Amino acid sequence: MDGAALTHDRFLNGRLRIWQPRQGYRAATDPVFLAAAVPARAGERVLELGCGVGAATLCLATRVPGLALTGLERQPAYAELARRNAAEAGMAVDVVTGDLTDMPPTIRAQSFDHVMMNPPYYATRDFSAPRDSGKDTAHREVAGTLADWVTAGRKRLRPGGRLTIIQQADRLDDMLMAFGRQFGDVMIRPLAPRAGRPAGRVLVTALKGRSGPLRLLAPLVLHDGPRHEQDGDDSSAAARAILRDGAALGWGDLSAG
Amino acid sequence: MDGAALTHDRFLNGRLRIWQPRQGYRAATDPVFLAAAVPARAGERVLELGCGVGAATLCLATRVPGLALTGLERQPAYAELARRNAAEAGMAVDVVTGDLTDMPPTIRAQSFDHVMMNPPYYATRDFSAPRDSGKDTAHREVAGTLADWVTAGRKRLRPGGRLTIIQQADRLDDMLMAFGRQFGDVMIRPLAPRAGRPAGRVLVTALKGRSGPLRLLAPLVLHDGPRHEQDGDDSSAAARAILRDGAALGWGDLSAG
Repeated sequence: MDGAALTHDRFLNGRLRIWQPRQGYRAATDPVFLAAAVPARAGERVLELGCGVGAATLCLATRVPGLALTGLERQPAYAELARRNAAEAGMAVDVVTGDLTDMPPTIRAQSFDHVMMNPPYYATRDFSAPRDSGKDTAHREVAGTLADWVTAGRKRLRPGGRLTIIQQADRLDDMLMAFGRQFGDVMIRPLAPRAGRPAGRVLVTALKGRSGPLRLLAPLVLHDGPRHEQDGDDSSAAARAILRDGAALGWGDLSAG
Repeated sequence: MDGAALTHDRFLNGRLRIWQPRQGYRAATDPVFLAAAVPARAGERVLELGCGVGAATLCLATRVPGLALTGLERQPAYAELARRNAAEAGMAVDVVTGDLTDMPPTIRAQSFDHVMMNPPYYATRDFSAPRDSGKDTAHREVAGTLADWVTAGRKRLRPGGRLTIIQQADRLDDMLMAFGRQFGDVMIRPLAPRAGRPAGRVLVTALKGRSGPLRLLAPLVLHDGPRHEQDGDDSSAAARAILRDGAALGWGDLSAG
Protein backbone atom coordinates (compact mmCIF):
# COMPACT_ATOMS: atom_id res chain seq x y z
CA MET A 1 0.00 0.00 0.00
CA ASP A 2 1.28 3.44 -1.00
CA GLY A 3 2.80 5.28 1.96
CA ALA A 4 0.77 8.42 1.30
CA ALA A 5 -2.36 6.29 1.71
CA LEU A 6 -1.37 5.41 5.26
CA THR A 7 -1.39 7.13 8.61
CA HIS A 8 0.83 6.23 11.55
CA ASP A 9 -1.36 6.53 14.63
CA ARG A 10 -0.63 6.56 18.33
CA PHE A 11 -2.42 4.12 20.61
CA LEU A 12 -2.13 3.75 24.39
CA ASN A 13 -0.67 7.21 24.80
CA GLY A 14 1.98 6.48 22.17
CA ARG A 15 3.24 3.18 23.57
CA LEU A 16 1.99 1.60 20.37
CA ARG A 17 2.12 2.95 16.83
CA ILE A 18 -0.13 1.55 14.12
CA TRP A 19 0.03 1.99 10.36
CA GLN A 20 -3.40 1.99 8.81
CA PRO A 21 -5.11 3.17 5.64
CA ARG A 22 -6.12 6.80 5.58
CA GLN A 23 -9.37 5.81 3.88
CA GLY A 24 -11.68 2.97 4.80
CA TYR A 25 -12.11 1.20 8.10
CA ARG A 26 -9.86 2.78 10.72
CA ALA A 27 -9.06 1.39 14.14
CA ALA A 28 -9.98 3.90 16.83
CA THR A 29 -11.14 3.10 20.35
CA ASP A 30 -13.11 -0.12 19.77
CA PRO A 31 -10.07 -2.40 19.38
CA VAL A 32 -8.51 -0.83 22.47
CA PHE A 33 -11.60 -1.59 24.56
CA LEU A 34 -11.74 -5.09 23.11
CA ALA A 35 -8.12 -5.77 24.05
CA ALA A 36 -8.70 -4.34 27.52
CA ALA A 37 -11.62 -6.73 28.03
CA VAL A 38 -9.72 -9.97 27.32
CA PRO A 39 -8.52 -11.40 30.65
CA ALA A 40 -5.68 -13.36 29.09
CA ARG A 41 -2.64 -14.42 31.09
CA ALA A 42 0.94 -15.07 30.03
CA GLY A 43 1.31 -18.35 28.22
CA GLU A 44 -2.22 -18.44 26.83
CA ARG A 45 -3.11 -18.71 23.14
CA VAL A 46 -5.22 -15.89 21.73
CA LEU A 47 -6.89 -15.73 18.31
CA GLU A 48 -8.33 -12.54 16.90
CA LEU A 49 -10.87 -13.00 14.14
CA GLY A 50 -10.87 -10.12 11.68
CA CYS A 51 -7.74 -8.53 13.10
CA GLY A 52 -7.54 -5.74 10.52
CA VAL A 53 -4.25 -3.89 10.95
CA GLY A 54 -3.72 -5.64 14.28
CA ALA A 55 -4.70 -2.89 16.70
CA ALA A 56 -6.55 -5.06 19.24
CA THR A 57 -4.00 -7.85 19.20
CA LEU A 58 -1.10 -5.43 19.62
CA CYS A 59 -2.87 -3.54 22.41
CA LEU A 60 -3.41 -6.84 24.20
CA ALA A 61 0.24 -7.79 23.69
CA THR A 62 1.26 -4.44 25.16
CA ARG A 63 -0.72 -5.09 28.35
CA VAL A 64 -0.02 -8.83 28.69
CA PRO A 65 3.43 -10.09 27.71
CA GLY A 66 4.04 -13.73 26.92
CA LEU A 67 0.89 -14.50 24.93
CA ALA A 68 0.87 -16.68 21.81
CA LEU A 69 -0.97 -14.45 19.34
CA THR A 70 -2.73 -15.31 16.08
CA GLY A 71 -4.74 -12.99 13.87
CA LEU A 72 -7.00 -13.89 10.97
CA GLU A 73 -7.67 -11.21 8.37
CA ARG A 74 -9.60 -11.58 5.15
CA GLN A 75 -8.14 -8.61 3.27
CA PRO A 76 -4.48 -9.06 2.26
CA ALA A 77 -3.60 -5.36 2.49
CA TYR A 78 -4.81 -5.20 6.09
CA ALA A 79 -3.08 -8.46 6.97
CA GLU A 80 0.16 -7.08 5.54
CA LEU A 81 -0.16 -3.96 7.66
CA ALA A 82 -0.83 -6.10 10.72
CA ARG A 83 2.43 -7.97 10.07
CA ARG A 84 4.29 -4.69 9.63
CA ASN A 85 2.77 -3.20 12.77
CA ALA A 86 3.68 -6.27 14.80
CA ALA A 87 7.22 -6.29 13.46
CA GLU A 88 7.76 -2.60 14.19
CA ALA A 89 6.41 -3.12 17.72
CA GLY A 90 8.77 -6.04 18.16
CA MET A 91 5.91 -8.43 18.83
CA ALA A 92 5.41 -11.91 17.44
CA VAL A 93 1.99 -12.30 15.88
CA ASP A 94 1.03 -15.02 13.42
CA VAL A 95 -1.13 -13.08 10.97
CA VAL A 96 -2.98 -15.42 8.62
CA THR A 97 -4.78 -14.19 5.54
CA GLY A 98 -8.07 -15.97 5.12
CA ASP A 99 -11.80 -16.08 5.61
CA LEU A 100 -13.45 -17.21 8.83
CA THR A 101 -16.20 -18.92 6.87
CA ASP A 102 -13.49 -21.03 5.22
CA MET A 103 -10.97 -21.25 8.02
CA PRO A 104 -7.36 -21.71 6.86
CA PRO A 105 -5.97 -25.13 7.83
CA THR A 106 -3.10 -23.59 9.80
CA ILE A 107 -5.63 -22.06 12.20
CA ARG A 108 -8.10 -24.94 12.01
CA ALA A 109 -5.38 -27.21 13.36
CA GLN A 110 -5.16 -25.18 16.59
CA SER A 111 -7.29 -24.47 19.61
CA PHE A 112 -7.14 -21.32 21.70
CA ASP A 113 -7.74 -20.16 25.25
CA HIS A 114 -9.23 -16.90 24.02
CA VAL A 115 -10.92 -15.73 20.86
CA MET A 116 -11.64 -12.02 20.49
CA MET A 117 -13.47 -10.21 17.75
CA ASN A 118 -14.88 -6.90 16.62
CA PRO A 119 -17.32 -8.15 13.98
CA PRO A 120 -19.04 -5.94 11.40
CA TYR A 121 -21.59 -3.72 13.07
CA TYR A 122 -24.35 -3.76 10.51
CA ALA A 123 -26.28 -6.75 9.33
CA THR A 124 -26.14 -6.99 5.57
CA ARG A 125 -29.82 -6.21 5.26
CA ASP A 126 -29.43 -2.88 7.06
CA PHE A 127 -26.65 -1.35 5.01
CA SER A 128 -26.61 0.18 1.59
CA ALA A 129 -23.17 1.82 1.25
CA PRO A 130 -20.80 0.94 -1.61
CA ARG A 131 -19.13 -2.42 -1.40
CA ASP A 132 -15.60 -1.77 -2.51
CA SER A 133 -13.77 -0.31 0.47
CA GLY A 134 -12.08 -1.79 3.49
CA LYS A 135 -14.46 0.22 5.60
CA ASP A 136 -17.29 -1.55 3.92
CA THR A 137 -15.92 -4.99 4.71
CA ALA A 138 -15.34 -4.06 8.33
CA HIS A 139 -18.74 -2.48 8.78
CA ARG A 140 -21.04 -4.82 6.97
CA GLU A 141 -21.35 -8.54 6.93
CA VAL A 142 -19.73 -9.34 3.61
CA ALA A 143 -17.30 -11.38 5.71
CA GLY A 144 -20.01 -13.52 7.29
CA THR A 145 -22.92 -12.96 9.64
CA LEU A 146 -22.49 -12.42 13.35
CA ALA A 147 -23.54 -16.04 13.84
CA ASP A 148 -20.76 -17.10 11.43
CA TRP A 149 -18.24 -15.19 13.53
CA VAL A 150 -19.46 -16.70 16.80
CA THR A 151 -19.46 -20.19 15.30
CA ALA A 152 -15.95 -19.76 13.90
CA GLY A 153 -14.77 -18.56 17.30
CA ARG A 154 -16.45 -21.40 19.16
CA LYS A 155 -14.87 -24.01 16.95
CA ARG A 156 -11.41 -22.65 17.65
CA LEU A 157 -11.84 -22.38 21.43
CA ARG A 158 -10.83 -25.14 23.78
CA PRO A 159 -13.64 -26.34 26.09
CA GLY A 160 -14.06 -23.64 28.72
CA GLY A 161 -12.20 -21.16 26.53
CA ARG A 162 -13.34 -17.55 26.52
CA LEU A 163 -14.92 -15.59 23.69
CA THR A 164 -14.84 -11.78 23.96
CA ILE A 165 -16.68 -9.51 21.53
CA ILE A 166 -17.22 -5.81 21.06
CA GLN A 167 -20.34 -4.94 19.12
CA GLN A 168 -22.99 -2.34 18.70
CA ALA A 169 -25.41 -2.57 21.60
CA ASP A 170 -28.36 -2.98 19.26
CA ARG A 171 -27.07 -6.41 18.25
CA LEU A 172 -27.07 -7.81 21.77
CA ASP A 173 -29.99 -10.06 20.88
CA ASP A 174 -28.21 -11.37 17.79
CA MET A 175 -25.15 -12.14 19.90
CA LEU A 176 -27.04 -13.96 22.63
CA MET A 177 -29.02 -15.91 20.04
CA ALA A 178 -25.76 -16.85 18.32
CA PHE A 179 -24.42 -18.09 21.67
CA GLY A 180 -27.53 -20.24 22.19
CA ARG A 181 -26.70 -22.94 24.71
CA GLN A 182 -23.13 -23.27 23.42
CA PHE A 183 -21.76 -20.60 25.77
CA GLY A 184 -22.40 -19.80 29.42
CA ASP A 185 -21.18 -17.45 32.16
CA VAL A 186 -22.06 -14.61 29.83
CA MET A 187 -21.11 -11.16 31.07
CA ILE A 188 -22.24 -7.96 29.40
CA ARG A 189 -20.50 -4.63 29.98
CA PRO A 190 -22.40 -1.79 28.29
CA LEU A 191 -20.33 1.14 27.01
CA ALA A 192 -22.42 4.28 27.38
CA PRO A 193 -21.32 7.57 25.85
CA ARG A 194 -22.54 9.47 28.93
CA ALA A 195 -24.23 8.68 32.23
CA GLY A 196 -27.92 7.95 31.77
CA ARG A 197 -27.60 7.38 28.02
CA PRO A 198 -28.33 4.12 26.22
CA ALA A 199 -25.33 1.94 25.50
CA GLY A 200 -23.64 2.51 22.16
CA ARG A 201 -21.41 -0.53 22.29
CA VAL A 202 -21.38 -3.65 24.41
CA LEU A 203 -18.50 -5.82 25.44
CA VAL A 204 -19.63 -9.41 25.90
CA THR A 205 -17.59 -12.30 27.21
CA ALA A 206 -18.64 -15.93 27.63
CA LEU A 207 -17.20 -19.39 28.17
CA LYS A 208 -17.53 -22.20 25.65
CA GLY A 209 -19.50 -25.17 26.93
CA ARG A 210 -20.30 -23.63 30.31
CA SER A 211 -23.75 -22.92 31.72
CA GLY A 212 -23.30 -20.39 34.52
CA PRO A 213 -25.75 -17.50 34.77
CA LEU A 214 -25.60 -14.35 32.70
CA ARG A 215 -24.56 -11.12 34.39
CA LEU A 216 -25.49 -7.66 33.15
CA LEU A 217 -22.87 -5.32 34.60
CA ALA A 218 -22.97 -1.61 35.21
CA PRO A 219 -22.12 0.49 32.16
CA LEU A 220 -18.68 1.88 31.57
CA VAL A 221 -19.39 5.56 30.98
CA LEU A 222 -17.00 7.01 28.42
CA HIS A 223 -17.43 10.75 28.88
CA ASP A 224 -18.11 12.98 31.85
CA GLY A 225 -20.90 15.52 31.88
CA PRO A 226 -24.20 15.62 30.06
CA ARG A 227 -22.77 16.66 26.67
CA HIS A 228 -19.57 17.44 24.85
CA GLU A 229 -18.08 20.81 25.78
CA GLN A 230 -15.80 22.71 23.44
CA ASP A 231 -12.07 22.39 23.88
CA GLY A 232 -10.62 19.62 25.91
CA ASP A 233 -11.05 15.95 26.47
CA ASP A 234 -14.01 15.02 28.63
CA SER A 235 -13.17 11.30 28.69
CA SER A 236 -14.08 9.67 31.97
CA ALA A 237 -11.31 8.44 34.26
CA ALA A 238 -12.32 4.85 33.51
CA ALA A 239 -12.08 5.42 29.76
CA ARG A 240 -8.74 7.23 30.07
CA ALA A 241 -7.30 4.40 32.16
CA ILE A 242 -8.03 1.98 29.32
CA LEU A 243 -7.32 4.17 26.30
CA ARG A 244 -4.21 5.95 27.56
CA ASP A 245 -2.81 3.89 30.39
CA GLY A 246 -3.58 0.50 28.87
CA ALA A 247 -5.51 -0.74 31.91
CA ALA A 248 -7.60 -3.89 31.84
CA LEU A 249 -11.37 -3.51 31.71
CA GLY A 250 -12.70 -5.13 34.85
CA TRP A 251 -15.40 -7.78 34.74
CA GLY A 252 -15.99 -7.62 38.50
CA ASP A 253 -15.43 -10.38 40.95
CA LEU A 254 -16.29 -13.55 39.08
CA SER A 255 -17.09 -15.31 42.33
CA ALA A 256 -19.50 -12.61 43.53
CA GLY A 257 -22.40 -13.98 41.47
CA MET B 1 -58.32 -18.05 52.75
CA ASP B 2 -58.34 -17.58 56.53
CA GLY B 3 -58.08 -13.91 57.48
CA ALA B 4 -55.21 -14.55 59.91
CA ALA B 5 -53.24 -15.99 57.00
CA LEU B 6 -53.43 -12.69 55.13
CA THR B 7 -51.76 -9.31 55.38
CA HIS B 8 -53.20 -6.06 54.10
CA ASP B 9 -50.31 -4.17 52.52
CA ARG B 10 -49.88 -0.60 51.37
CA PHE B 11 -48.66 0.07 47.83
CA LEU B 12 -47.98 3.42 46.15
CA ASN B 13 -47.71 5.23 49.48
CA GLY B 14 -51.05 3.82 50.60
CA ARG B 15 -53.10 4.73 47.53
CA LEU B 16 -53.59 1.02 46.99
CA ARG B 17 -54.16 -1.70 49.59
CA ILE B 18 -53.56 -5.35 48.72
CA TRP B 19 -54.60 -8.48 50.61
CA GLN B 20 -52.07 -11.24 50.20
CA PRO B 21 -51.01 -14.45 51.94
CA ARG B 22 -48.68 -14.00 54.87
CA GLN B 23 -46.75 -17.07 53.70
CA GLY B 24 -45.64 -17.91 50.20
CA TYR B 25 -45.04 -15.60 47.26
CA ARG B 26 -45.59 -11.99 48.30
CA ALA B 27 -45.88 -9.01 46.00
CA ALA B 28 -43.27 -6.39 46.91
CA THR B 29 -41.59 -3.97 44.53
CA ASP B 30 -41.36 -6.09 41.35
CA PRO B 31 -45.05 -5.75 40.38
CA VAL B 32 -44.87 -2.01 41.03
CA PHE B 33 -41.90 -1.62 38.67
CA LEU B 34 -43.63 -3.83 36.11
CA ALA B 35 -46.77 -1.69 36.20
CA ALA B 36 -44.69 1.48 35.96
CA ALA B 37 -43.01 0.14 32.83
CA VAL B 38 -46.18 -0.51 30.80
CA PRO B 39 -46.84 2.56 28.62
CA ALA B 40 -50.56 1.85 28.31
CA ARG B 41 -53.07 4.57 27.48
CA ALA B 42 -56.73 4.93 28.35
CA GLY B 43 -58.93 2.67 26.25
CA GLU B 44 -56.27 -0.01 25.71
CA ARG B 45 -56.67 -3.66 26.62
CA VAL B 46 -54.09 -5.07 29.02
CA LEU B 47 -53.57 -8.71 29.98
CA GLU B 48 -51.40 -9.74 32.91
CA LEU B 49 -50.19 -13.33 32.81
CA GLY B 50 -49.73 -14.77 36.30
CA CYS B 51 -51.37 -11.84 38.06
CA GLY B 52 -51.16 -13.34 41.55
CA VAL B 53 -53.13 -11.15 43.97
CA GLY B 54 -53.34 -8.45 41.31
CA ALA B 55 -50.68 -6.03 42.53
CA ALA B 56 -49.22 -5.10 39.12
CA THR B 57 -52.60 -4.78 37.40
CA LEU B 58 -53.99 -2.64 40.21
CA CYS B 59 -50.87 -0.43 40.30
CA LEU B 60 -51.26 0.09 36.56
CA ALA B 61 -54.96 0.90 36.97
CA THR B 62 -54.05 3.43 39.65
CA ARG B 63 -51.70 5.26 37.28
CA VAL B 64 -53.72 4.92 34.07
CA PRO B 65 -57.51 5.14 34.34
CA GLY B 66 -59.74 3.80 31.61
CA LEU B 67 -57.90 0.56 30.78
CA ALA B 68 -59.67 -2.71 30.05
CA LEU B 69 -57.87 -5.08 32.42
CA THR B 70 -57.63 -8.87 32.40
CA GLY B 71 -55.58 -11.07 34.73
CA LEU B 72 -54.81 -14.75 34.37
CA GLU B 73 -53.86 -16.65 37.53
CA ARG B 74 -53.27 -20.36 37.90
CA GLN B 75 -53.86 -20.66 41.64
CA PRO B 76 -57.51 -20.18 42.68
CA ALA B 77 -56.69 -18.71 46.09
CA TYR B 78 -54.55 -15.99 44.52
CA ALA B 79 -57.13 -15.32 41.81
CA GLU B 80 -59.79 -14.92 44.50
CA LEU B 81 -57.62 -12.41 46.34
CA ALA B 82 -57.05 -10.51 43.09
CA ARG B 83 -60.82 -10.23 42.65
CA ARG B 84 -61.20 -9.04 46.24
CA ASN B 85 -58.39 -6.53 45.90
CA ALA B 86 -59.88 -5.13 42.69
CA ALA B 87 -63.34 -4.88 44.21
CA GLU B 88 -62.07 -3.09 47.31
CA ALA B 89 -60.12 -0.67 45.12
CA GLY B 90 -63.24 -0.04 43.07
CA MET B 91 -61.53 -1.24 39.90
CA ALA B 92 -62.91 -3.53 37.21
CA VAL B 93 -60.53 -6.39 36.48
CA ASP B 94 -61.54 -9.61 34.77
CA VAL B 95 -59.56 -12.16 36.77
CA VAL B 96 -59.60 -15.56 35.08
CA THR B 97 -58.42 -18.70 36.83
CA GLY B 98 -56.41 -20.84 34.47
CA ASP B 99 -53.07 -21.96 33.12
CA LEU B 100 -51.18 -20.07 30.42
CA THR B 101 -50.06 -23.35 28.86
CA ASP B 102 -53.76 -24.22 28.42
CA MET B 103 -55.22 -20.78 27.89
CA PRO B 104 -58.87 -20.44 28.98
CA PRO B 105 -61.19 -19.87 26.00
CA THR B 106 -62.48 -16.59 27.42
CA ILE B 107 -58.96 -15.14 27.10
CA ARG B 108 -58.07 -17.03 23.95
CA ALA B 109 -60.97 -15.29 22.24
CA GLN B 110 -59.41 -11.87 22.84
CA SER B 111 -56.39 -9.90 21.68
CA PHE B 112 -54.65 -7.22 23.70
CA ASP B 113 -52.65 -4.05 23.20
CA HIS B 114 -50.37 -4.94 26.12
CA VAL B 115 -49.34 -8.11 27.85
CA MET B 116 -47.31 -7.82 31.05
CA MET B 117 -45.77 -10.53 33.15
CA ASN B 118 -43.52 -11.26 36.09
CA PRO B 119 -42.66 -14.89 35.30
CA PRO B 120 -41.01 -17.31 37.74
CA TYR B 121 -37.43 -16.33 38.33
CA TYR B 122 -35.79 -19.72 38.46
CA ALA B 123 -35.67 -22.29 35.73
CA THR B 124 -36.99 -25.59 36.99
CA ARG B 125 -33.61 -27.20 36.71
CA ASP B 126 -32.03 -24.66 39.07
CA PHE B 127 -34.37 -24.96 42.01
CA SER B 128 -34.82 -27.66 44.58
CA ALA B 129 -37.21 -26.17 47.17
CA PRO B 130 -40.45 -27.90 48.17
CA ARG B 131 -43.23 -27.80 45.64
CA ASP B 132 -46.30 -27.16 47.70
CA SER B 133 -46.44 -23.40 48.34
CA GLY B 134 -47.67 -20.42 46.41
CA LYS B 135 -44.16 -19.05 46.68
CA ASP B 136 -42.94 -22.12 44.94
CA THR B 137 -45.30 -21.68 42.01
CA ALA B 138 -44.37 -18.03 41.62
CA HIS B 139 -40.64 -18.62 41.86
CA ARG B 140 -40.12 -21.74 39.82
CA GLU B 141 -41.37 -22.83 36.49
CA VAL B 142 -44.06 -25.28 37.51
CA ALA B 143 -46.36 -22.93 35.61
CA GLY B 144 -44.44 -23.19 32.34
CA THR B 145 -41.01 -22.17 31.10
CA LEU B 146 -40.10 -18.60 30.29
CA ALA B 147 -40.52 -19.51 26.61
CA ASP B 148 -44.05 -20.75 27.41
CA TRP B 149 -44.86 -17.41 29.02
CA VAL B 150 -43.49 -15.41 26.09
CA THR B 151 -45.34 -17.58 23.60
CA ALA B 152 -48.61 -17.28 25.51
CA GLY B 153 -48.18 -13.51 25.62
CA ARG B 154 -47.33 -13.27 21.94
CA LYS B 155 -50.41 -15.21 20.94
CA ARG B 156 -52.66 -12.86 22.85
CA LEU B 157 -51.08 -9.63 21.53
CA ARG B 158 -52.42 -7.85 18.49
CA PRO B 159 -49.81 -7.24 15.74
CA GLY B 160 -47.58 -4.43 17.02
CA GLY B 161 -48.82 -5.00 20.57
CA ARG B 162 -46.36 -4.58 23.40
CA LEU B 163 -45.00 -7.22 25.75
CA THR B 164 -43.45 -5.99 29.02
CA ILE B 165 -41.62 -8.33 31.41
CA ILE B 166 -39.78 -8.04 34.69
CA GLN B 167 -37.27 -10.79 35.29
CA GLN B 168 -34.01 -11.60 37.00
CA ALA B 169 -31.18 -10.10 34.98
CA ASP B 170 -29.47 -13.47 34.66
CA ARG B 171 -32.28 -14.66 32.39
CA LEU B 172 -31.84 -11.92 29.82
CA ASP B 173 -30.47 -14.45 27.35
CA ASP B 174 -33.44 -16.77 27.89
CA MET B 175 -35.81 -13.86 27.29
CA LEU B 176 -34.12 -12.70 24.11
CA MET B 177 -33.96 -16.24 22.81
CA ALA B 178 -37.67 -16.67 23.58
CA PHE B 179 -38.36 -13.50 21.59
CA GLY B 180 -36.40 -14.84 18.62
CA ARG B 181 -37.50 -12.95 15.51
CA GLN B 182 -41.10 -12.70 16.73
CA PHE B 183 -40.52 -9.42 18.57
CA GLY B 184 -38.60 -6.27 17.71
CA ASP B 185 -37.92 -2.79 19.08
CA VAL B 186 -36.65 -4.50 22.21
CA MET B 187 -35.72 -2.16 25.05
CA ILE B 188 -33.90 -3.28 28.16
CA ARG B 189 -33.89 -1.25 31.36
CA PRO B 190 -31.55 -2.80 33.97
CA LEU B 191 -32.54 -2.35 37.62
CA ALA B 192 -29.34 -2.10 39.65
CA PRO B 193 -29.38 -2.16 43.45
CA ARG B 194 -26.66 0.51 43.58
CA ALA B 195 -24.57 2.53 41.15
CA GLY B 196 -21.81 0.44 39.61
CA ARG B 197 -23.39 -2.87 40.63
CA PRO B 198 -24.61 -5.57 38.26
CA ALA B 199 -28.31 -5.50 37.46
CA GLY B 200 -30.50 -7.62 39.74
CA ARG B 201 -33.63 -7.36 37.65
CA VAL B 202 -34.31 -6.25 34.10
CA LEU B 203 -37.41 -4.71 32.63
CA VAL B 204 -37.76 -5.66 28.99
CA THR B 205 -40.34 -4.39 26.53
CA ALA B 206 -40.79 -5.36 22.87
CA LEU B 207 -43.29 -5.15 20.04
CA LYS B 208 -44.87 -8.19 18.45
CA GLY B 209 -44.03 -8.62 14.78
CA ARG B 210 -41.73 -5.59 14.61
CA SER B 211 -38.04 -5.58 13.70
CA GLY B 212 -36.59 -2.31 14.99
CA PRO B 213 -33.20 -2.38 16.73
CA LEU B 214 -32.64 -3.34 20.33
CA ARG B 215 -31.75 -0.64 22.84
CA LEU B 216 -29.88 -1.24 26.07
CA LEU B 217 -30.79 1.68 28.32
CA ALA B 218 -29.01 3.11 31.33
CA PRO B 219 -29.76 1.29 34.57
CA LEU B 220 -32.35 2.53 37.00
CA VAL B 221 -30.39 2.63 40.26
CA LEU B 222 -32.61 1.71 43.21
CA HIS B 223 -30.57 2.88 46.18
CA ASP B 224 -28.23 5.75 46.81
CA GLY B 225 -24.77 5.28 48.23
CA PRO B 226 -22.37 2.37 48.07
CA ARG B 227 -24.15 0.23 50.68
CA HIS B 228 -27.14 0.13 52.98
CA GLU B 229 -26.77 2.37 56.01
CA GLN B 230 -28.61 1.68 59.22
CA ASP B 231 -31.89 3.45 59.85
CA GLY B 232 -33.67 5.19 57.08
CA ASP B 233 -34.65 4.62 53.51
CA ASP B 234 -31.87 5.11 51.01
CA SER B 235 -34.09 4.59 47.97
CA SER B 236 -33.04 6.70 45.02
CA ALA B 237 -35.27 9.53 43.88
CA ALA B 238 -36.10 7.55 40.72
CA ALA B 239 -37.15 4.49 42.72
CA ARG B 240 -39.21 6.58 45.15
CA ALA B 241 -41.02 8.30 42.28
CA ILE B 242 -42.18 4.90 41.04
CA LEU B 243 -42.77 3.07 44.31
CA ARG B 244 -44.38 5.90 46.30
CA ASP B 245 -45.62 8.43 43.81
CA GLY B 246 -46.77 5.95 41.18
CA ALA B 247 -44.74 7.53 38.38
CA ALA B 248 -44.24 5.83 35.04
CA LEU B 249 -40.85 4.28 34.34
CA GLY B 250 -39.45 6.10 31.34
CA TRP B 251 -38.22 4.25 28.28
CA GLY B 252 -36.56 7.35 26.84
CA ASP B 253 -37.39 9.09 23.64
CA LEU B 254 -38.39 6.32 21.26
CA SER B 255 -37.36 8.40 18.29
CA ALA B 256 -33.88 9.17 19.65
CA GLY B 257 -32.43 5.86 18.42
